[in-house]
Amino acid sequence: MSNTKAYAAQTATSKMAPLNIQRRDLRPDDVSIEILYCGVCHSDIHQAENDWGNSMYPVVPGHEIIGRVTAIGPQVTKYKEGDYVGVGCMVDSCCSCSSCKTGLEQYCDNGMVGTYNGKDLHDGTLTFGGYSERIVVREDFVLSIPEALDIKSAAPLLCAGITTYSPLKHYGVKAGDKVGVLGMGGLGHMGVKYAKALGAEVTVFTRSASKVNEAKQQGADHVIISTDDDQMAAASLQFDFLLDTIPVAHDFNPYLNCLKVDGVHIVVGLITGIEPPLWGVNLISKRRVLAGSMIGGIAETQEMLDFSAEHGISCEVEMLDIQHINEAYERMKKGDVKYRFVIDMESLKKA
Amino acid sequence: MSNTKAYAAQTATSKMAPLNIQRRDLRPDDVSIEILYCGVCHSDIHQAENDWGNSMYPVVPGHEIIGRVTAIGPQVTKYKEGDYVGVGCMVDSCCSCSSCKTGLEQYCDNGMVGTYNGKDLHDGTLTFGGYSERIVVREDFVLSIPEALDIKSAAPLLCAGITTYSPLKHYGVKAGDKVGVLGMGGLGHMGVKYAKALGAEVTVFTRSASKVNEAKQQGADHVIISTDDDQMAAASLQFDFLLDTIPVAHDFNPYLNCLKVDGVHIVVGLITGIEPPLWGVNLISKRRVLAGSMIGGIAETQEMLDFSAEHGISCEVEMLDIQHINEAYERMKKGDVKYRFVIDMESLKKA
Ligand SMILES: [Zn+2]
Ligand SMILES: [Zn+2]
Ligand SMILES: [Zn+2]
Ligand SMILES: [Zn+2]
Repeated sequence: MSNTKAYAAQTATSKMAPLNIQRRDLRPDDVSIEILYCGVCHSDIHQAENDWGNSMYPVVPGHEIIGRVTAIGPQVTKYKEGDYVGVGCMVDSCCSCSSCKTGLEQYCDNGMVGTYNGKDLHDGTLTFGGYSERIVVREDFVLSIPEALDIKSAAPLLCAGITTYSPLKHYGVKAGDKVGVLGMGGLGHMGVKYAKALGAEVTVFTRSASKVNEAKQQGADHVIISTDDDQMAAASLQFDFLLDTIPVAHDFNPYLNCLKVDGVHIVVGLITGIEPPLWGVNLISKRRVLAGSMIGGIAETQEMLDFSAEHGISCEVEMLDIQHINEAYERMKKGDVKYRFVIDMESLKKA
Repeated sequence: MSNTKAYAAQTATSKMAPLNIQRRDLRPDDVSIEILYCGVCHSDIHQAENDWGNSMYPVVPGHEIIGRVTAIGPQVTKYKEGDYVGVGCMVDSCCSCSSCKTGLEQYCDNGMVGTYNGKDLHDGTLTFGGYSERIVVREDFVLSIPEALDIKSAAPLLCAGITTYSPLKHYGVKAGDKVGVLGMGGLGHMGVKYAKALGAEVTVFTRSASKVNEAKQQGADHVIISTDDDQMAAASLQFDFLLDTIPVAHDFNPYLNCLKVDGVHIVVGLITGIEPPLWGVNLISKRRVLAGSMIGGIAETQEMLDFSAEHGISCEVEMLDIQHINEAYERMKKGDVKYRFVIDMESLKKA
């Protein structure tokens, strides 16, 4: 066991504060990683504040981890000391169910092990995330960071990137497709980049006219102000796919009407109820599809990293010292970040 | 123009009663059909009573029509006098949009022409359905009835049959798949038959224990009482597809949880709002899909008829004289029919 500096929430109402945690000794297939950068995801806040009612304290958030290998177990073959590696939202799964066997570890029938707020499958200890000096992770759940990626801005790819990349690939988005992206936060701006890189014509839907230029800077071909009835009417039956990153309840019906026959509305941001109610007729009348998607499997996450390197895709980030994490949370709650905070973990050494 | 006996609703609150309507003279590509049998669909009631707010009176319902060709226009090549034919939910469409060009006339971008309560594309006259002596329909929207089908019980295939057959085919239901059918009315019992014929293992979900034997008689392998929490819990993650024929608002969440990863919940019965709200997490956490589907294209409807003949599939019907249509409507509102009323149009001659 090794004593490790970290930042943690001790209760649902306490601020993030320094805490010493223990990292396990290396198992034969483990990799020990010195954490260099860690993205800040909205899930970090939800888990720290127990918004989902399932938090186990202390919560050490962080599942957009970039680091350097410092040691490996005797059976590790894919990584060596000094390699730049990543860890995303999961650190283990059963590896024997049909989902795991088909590269869909995120949908493991027995439940994937979250990078934080999870239970280790061997000893039942609580998992702790990337707001810490180092992490020990099973080799098979460690990603390789391509040299061409900037390691600071690559961190959020491990969650925001794969969350948007995976459904676009799963549904076969291709050149010529018309893709709408709903919401222009951390997820939305990544969705724009991947949809563009896959050759689609991309339209951002946003409520605020103030985001039009931003959306175009991120690569959007068009912007529709979703509160403008004329613009929404003109968008009727125009889209093959909608990538919906909006994290709060919203009316799906006007968006569904923008889909063509067989169009697919992909939900990645909303885990609570769809209100006001979605009307059956909006699916039935054009054979439309409403689909959910959650991060991606390990192999697909590696593919996403390689694709990002190849296409020069990274996340827009604002760098942060970990001492300012509570302020960052407050700013994120107001939507005041473009587009993702990334903690420079060097700052933790000063803590 | 030819004077034609029919039954019609004259207002949203009037009973169905005899009315003389006019059928158009044959256009070059028209087929004139003497109507022998007409199924009674819930849509008939909704349209007669203006439940959807779009009824144009008089409403002559009926879109599950079986008849015999009595005359053809000079350009008609597919049918000749004496042929047994069918007419389903639509009698025309633009035939030039991308949906029409791919055999999806039911999703025509310019709107299909309903068999009743539609507007003829040539002269704008109101369309009248199958509660009548005869109908004149464009050849391309007339179906051929295979000899092996019993023409009485084949009538409901034109709506209830194709509504359930089309999505099962579209989503590729095949031998070994586990299919759940929600609701055991006119649509549900057809869904059971088609899913079985496609080789699936079929489970009926019903609220009433009284329907268990019925469901098994129709071919279901298993029955789950949806109000039994233990049975529902045991069904978690078990199904590839759910065919949801329930026509009223219901909680989708417990059903979604019965789907495996990538499972598809197909909605064919509910056109109004999904309440209580569907939770995003139930789609996202297992990449599940909620899909709508509406009847089928003309070519697929012919395929369904041929498939039904080949597999000995027909609808369970109760025969009705048209003089009793108002009583039939009242019984249907109470769910008191197994499983579809079919009007013997011979009775109209006595009216
Ligand atoms: Zn995240
Ligand atoms: Zn598994
Ligand atoms: Zn019908
Ligand atoms: Zn059309």
